[in-house]
Amino acid sequence: MPHENKLLPICKRIMPDEMSRPLIRERGEGARHLEDSVADRSAPVIGILGTGDFSRSLARRLVASGYQVVVGSRTPKIFVALFPEEVEVTTQLEAANKADLCFIAVYPEHHSTLVELKPALAGKTLVDVSNSLRINQNGPSNAELLADYFPESSVVKGFNTISAWTLQMGPRDGGRQVFLCSNSQKAKNTVKAICHRMGFIPIDMGLLSSSLEIENLPLYLFPSWRLPLLCTLFLFIFFYLYNFIRDVLQPYVMEGKKAFYKMPIEVVNATLPSVTLVMLALVYLPGVFAAILQLWSGTKYNRFPNWLDRWLTSRKQLGLCSFLCAVLHAVYSLCLPLRKSARFKLVNMAYKQVKAGVDDSWVDEEVWRMELYLSVGIMALGLLCLLAVTSLPSVANTINWREFSFIQSTLGYCALFMATAHTLLYGWNRAFDLRQYRFNMPPTFVLVLVLPFLVLLSRLALCVPCAAGRLMKVRRGWERSRHIRFTLPAEGCHNGLEDVSNV
Amino acid sequence: MPHENKLLPICKRIMPDEMSRPLIRERGEGARHLEDSVADRSAPVIGILGTGDFSRSLARRLVASGYQVVVGSRTPKIFVALFPEEVEVTTQLEAANKADLCFIAVYPEHHSTLVELKPALAGKTLVDVSNSLRINQNGPSNAELLADYFPESSVVKGFNTISAWTLQMGPRDGGRQVFLCSNSQKAKNTVKAICHRMGFIPIDMGLLSSSLEIENLPLYLFPSWRLPLLCTLFLFIFFYLYNFIRDVLQPYVMEGKKAFYKMPIEVVNATLPSVTLVMLALVYLPGVFAAILQLWSGTKYNRFPNWLDRWLTSRKQLGLCSFLCAVLHAVYSLCLPLRKSARFKLVNMAYKQVKAGVDDSWVDEEVWRMELYLSVGIMALGLLCLLAVTSLPSVANTINWREFSFIQSTLGYCALFMATAHTLLYGWNRAFDLRQYRFNMPPTFVLVLVLPFLVLLSRLALCVPCAAGRLMKVRRGWERSRHIRFTLPAEGCHNGLEDVSNV
Amino acid sequence: MPHENKLLPICKRIMPDEMSRPLIRERGEGARHLEDSVADRSAPVIGILGTGDFSRSLARRLVASGYQVVVGSRTPKIFVALFPEEVEVTTQLEAANKADLCFIAVYPEHHSTLVELKPALAGKTLVDVSNSLRINQNGPSNAELLADYFPESSVVKGFNTISAWTLQMGPRDGGRQVFLCSNSQKAKNTVKAICHRMGFIPIDMGLLSSSLEIENLPLYLFPSWRLPLLCTLFLFIFFYLYNFIRDVLQPYVMEGKKAFYKMPIEVVNATLPSVTLVMLALVYLPGVFAAILQLWSGTKYNRFPNWLDRWLTSRKQLGLCSFLCAVLHAVYSLCLPLRKSARFKLVNMAYKQVKAGVDDSWVDEEVWRMELYLSVGIMALGLLCLLAVTSLPSVANTINWREFSFIQSTLGYCALFMATAHTLLYGWNRAFDLRQYRFNMPPTFVLVLVLPFLVLLSRLALCVPCAAGRLMKVRRGWERSRHIRFTLPAEGCHNGLEDVSNV
Repeated sequence: MPHENKLLPICKRIMPDEMSRPLIRERGEGARHLEDSVADRSAPVIGILGTGDFSRSLARRLVASGYQVVVGSRTPKIFVALFPEEVEVTTQLEAANKADLCFIAVYPEHHSTLVELKPALAGKTLVDVSNSLRINQNGPSNAELLADYFPESSVVKGFNTISAWTLQMGPRDGGRQVFLCSNSQKAKNTVKAICHRMGFIPIDMGLLSSSLEIENLPLYLFPSWRLPLLCTLFLFIFFYLYNFIRDVLQPYVMEGKKAFYKMPIEVVNATLPSVTLVMLALVYLPGVFAAILQLWSGTKYNRFPNWLDRWLTSRKQLGLCSFLCAVLHAVYSLCLPLRKSARFKLVNMAYKQVKAGVDDSWVDEEVWRMELYLSVGIMALGLLCLLAVTSLPSVANTINWREFSFIQSTLGYCALFMATAHTLLYGWNRAFDLRQYRFNMPPTFVLVLVLPFLVLLSRLALCVPCAAGRLMKVRRGWERSRHIRFTLPAEGCHNGLEDVSNV
Repeated sequence: MPHENKLLPICKRIMPDEMSRPLIRERGEGARHLEDSVADRSAPVIGILGTGDFSRSLARRLVASGYQVVVGSRTPKIFVALFPEEVEVTTQLEAANKADLCFIAVYPEHHSTLVELKPALAGKTLVDVSNSLRINQNGPSNAELLADYFPESSVVKGFNTISAWTLQMGPRDGGRQVFLCSNSQKAKNTVKAICHRMGFIPIDMGLLSSSLEIENLPLYLFPSWRLPLLCTLFLFIFFYLYNFIRDVLQPYVMEGKKAFYKMPIEVVNATLPSVTLVMLALVYLPGVFAAILQLWSGTKYNRFPNWLDRWLTSRKQLGLCSFLCAVLHAVYSLCLPLRKSARFKLVNMAYKQVKAGVDDSWVDEEVWRMELYLSVGIMALGLLCLLAVTSLPSVANTINWREFSFIQSTLGYCALFMATAHTLLYGWNRAFDLRQYRFNMPPTFVLVLVLPFLVLLSRLALCVPCAAGRLMKVRRGWERSRHIRFTLPAEGCHNGLEDVSNV
Repeated sequence: MPHENKLLPICKRIMPDEMSRPLIRERGEGARHLEDSVADRSAPVIGILGTGDFSRSLARRLVASGYQVVVGSRTPKIFVALFPEEVEVTTQLEAANKADLCFIAVYPEHHSTLVELKPALAGKTLVDVSNSLRINQNGPSNAELLADYFPESSVVKGFNTISAWTLQMGPRDGGRQVFLCSNSQKAKNTVKAICHRMGFIPIDMGLLSSSLEIENLPLYLFPSWRLPLLCTLFLFIFFYLYNFIRDVLQPYVMEGKKAFYKMPIEVVNATLPSVTLVMLALVYLPGVFAAILQLWSGTKYNRFPNWLDRWLTSRKQLGLCSFLCAVLHAVYSLCLPLRKSARFKLVNMAYKQVKAGVDDSWVDEEVWRMELYLSVGIMALGLLCLLAVTSLPSVANTINWREFSFIQSTLGYCALFMATAHTLLYGWNRAFDLRQYRFNMPPTFVLVLVLPFLVLLSRLALCVPCAAGRLMKVRRGWERSRHIRFTLPAEGCHNGLEDVSNV
């Protein structure tokens, strides 16, 4: 499942020769070339230094957008065949002289080799498209180093998040944003105009000091998922060990029962719902904190503490981790009757019943407990599925703010309530059964229920009219402590209700 | 899972300080500010009256798009710190005087307080960005009221569907449409140009009388889902009661058997497939009606009756409801052997077999029936999953019309056929077993099969060459009764085959 | 689930009368008309010949984009009511005379009837929007035929992939690309400008010889899925027969046991995991081939052989087919304990145990084997689900290249490893049990494991430092045989690492 996936399938059909990875294209067929459009003679002449894949794709796209392109190479004769006909491939010096603006498409470790072009590039805009091989935390960035080499040119950082592939195939919905930064507003504006003409959306990131950030962008590996995944992992390990001690170790130590076969499935399946419920509570806990903070400070214009801010922005990821655990719990549970161990137990049970001569082993309470917690569990899972589906970007885009908030907040709380009810029904009256406190450890579900109860009760408390009314006022812009209180109702504005209204 | 979800995750990383909810930003850091671009002195000066969240985000975006922005506040000194440096924050009167065009970003209930600005705003364009708190069915809209206050200005309604958040982060794929309406074409054109420059797509909704509609847009709560959900709910309740009477009440009344434990799972699981199949038939029934109507009237240019039109546009939602029930049915079914009740029954069965001394209780017919209806059921579910996945907006966008129609129409009918076969195999010969007619009520599957049979047979009838040929002619633009029949084949056009061809 | 699905639901609410399929609209209401914008008198006058659905939607959109539109009909009086007020409906000749550029929106089989307009259209640009009814492999295309009829006009092919529906509702994210081709660069540029103004993205496909390709585009039916689906089908049939012979036929022939009831579920369920694992290996095999080829040829600039190229581009589809089989395997497996046959067997087992008087039938090895392969299987399925979700276009668009490659390559290999381990654990020691070689046919899992082992071992071999280092060098642009080797490190560029780095 390679990178072609990221493109609309339609392209696969119409541009088969563009698709083949080696970029050398057959010429002279006449049909189907991107570079067919004539160059616009009034547009700036654009130079590209470097002849790698990115350089070639960039040249192709620039030509297709009507620019005159000149490529600078150390060995122009060898590389001329790799570029479209309309592109002039010449020496680096000539390219630097001819171009009004220059893309620097050589590896950053070779930027220093370009110093001889300094006079030719003086006063011109240089666009640094380079990436690092690994995340650079401290700087200086490639672009800042380039700016040091060429103090008389204006360096713009950008296009590094765009792949050669995207350049060649044309911008698609997903890869249309080009992050730009520069110390020269004029140079940035020129590059913005080129972006627009190529079909990309330039995003202004400010001064060149942001270039480090921009260079790191394509190197990130799910930064927003790190904490939620760590949190899931930690909870999983904790509950796994807890359940292992209670369900496997205790019977072995106390009664000599070997139940180690439970480790791959049964203990995991006892752990997953615990993780699910705690994570789900963690999704809604920060919203409760935020509401309390706003009520307490009497304004929504105070910044939240950093930890809360970070937590609030991780809610989606926490929720999806919780959903993943819930689905795995469902699959593991459904696998239970499949197992040989379940079948052996059943047959042995039948054997014992026959030996004991019991006509009917039916226990009504146990039947009811299981029917109830299963059915509530299925409903909770269904609601979580809905939440997960509306988290898909394409679905989220088709619904308005009120619908989104209804699903993520109202239905989300329903899911939390259902999951809590599922756990309560599962527990039944066993929290009060002393035999369940093996090694003096309370049953897992008792531990698990603490956080959800806390969240649900706080939410209820925030629904009490006096709290709810005040919270709504605060969120519409009202402030307790400000002197301008009297003017605010007239000046706050309608969409303010969005801010953390999804507690 | 809050509203940040609606943004591309990339933004979360690069603009952490933009992300934090309180909108007061630290200044002077230099790096990473949207408002870095210089204002275009030839562009109109844009005023914003009001200083709430929306006002601030709008100012930021306008500055980033190169506009000169002046904000009018009653207490400009207090609010100046909340706006980007490039924005002039002054009194309302001065802002109204300086601006060529004015955004009105105060709560609609305070529009009247602006009346003193009337002379300053005369002849200028006012953009009303306000929303209502609840759906307003009868009007007048906020924009119409504003137009009444300022008869000498041109009022344009718009931007209310855009959140402060979207404004601040820049337009993303999902939230790029700005719905506009105004009685002045010139004012509308100016605002359209501003939209384009800010990266939004203006959508012209006509005269100011459409403003009510536009104001209601962000307040809708799944209007297209209301009927399909009600329909699902009604069918669910009906079939649940029907099954409850047959499976729980009748055994209790007639034989005194207490089977109330069946209520949470078994009765639900008998109800869900019934709802699924009836809903699936309801997806394809209106297409059949439409085809018959077209055949009967001999033209495709007649308007369908309103009920049919509404039904046709609800097919996607009906289908997804049906799919939801199918998935729940699968999950409930898979849970059956998990339950304590199933285990007790099995053990009791073994006990009875031992007591009776029967070597082998195998009944070949029952085994075959179950293997067959399970396997057909899985296939039906698989097809429904395919239909659901291709209903996702992002998947639907990557396939062409013919592919979409193949999946939704051809595979859809296959799914309906499979689901019908699943029900038939489940029924086996029990429709003819009088003992199944408890309380004289026919088994549920008999009731359920009526509608699918009707749809499948009508579809078959429409495939008969004479009907199919004529239908195709009608859909290509041919008309029986029109006098211009002789000219149509030359003038109808190719894409006409789309219209209801998905019967 | 009809074609309205492809539109944002928001439209459904705001334009109910635009939604109704018959295109005759009520007039005079004032509110909500797209064509409200005034025509731009400096823009070219656009003619449309033909009055079908497409013509009407096109006219509406052109008017909304500010163009002056004149429609040519044979019977203008009859059709005038079907067009917006701003459109002039007149005779074909007058329309051809008035227009600066003409859309030809009549069925291609009637192109010849337009020949009388030749003088009027001479020197003008004609846009052919027609589609064929079936895929035309050999040409000439409709557009080429039209160009033959009008040698003095410039024919541009385009807009045929846009539906009347999309035209009418305005371009949405999915349907914004207009593929264009023409022999006249000037004519193409004019049409490109019109595209831009209508909100579409023109995609230049070169000369008119590409028109056949463009005309075929909307007629394709999942061309990229054909081979992967055929491959899946072939593997399914092969393994089904193999399992049928081993599990059903052999017991019947050798021992007279009738196990035909296994055909719908058990044999299918033994077949599905085999297909899954082989398909998954086929996803990663071409990447290994490509890496070996690159190592062997010492360059990445050689074109891969066609079969490999095609295989590489089919990996996503192969992977999704494999995922589908995996999910079906899971569902079938979970259904096993549901079946009557499983219950009969269990009860008979209990009966036998009672007769034999065995206290405990527990076999520890069998229990462990099943617990282990189930749990590894669930993990493999979980990983495959992750891969499938990130294959969704909207999700793939939100992650950067490194993240995509991590999921599809690293996690993909993990999934392959897990699935192989699942199969190995399932096999346990039965590969060495001669009784398993019924009819001398090795157990299915032995056959299945060959390919995954091959892929995993080759991948390991490519990770050996000397191979890995060299491969990385090749992919950064280094070449063994080229004379320009010394210049390349400085000129290759950063994003080259994308090319087949996902082996």
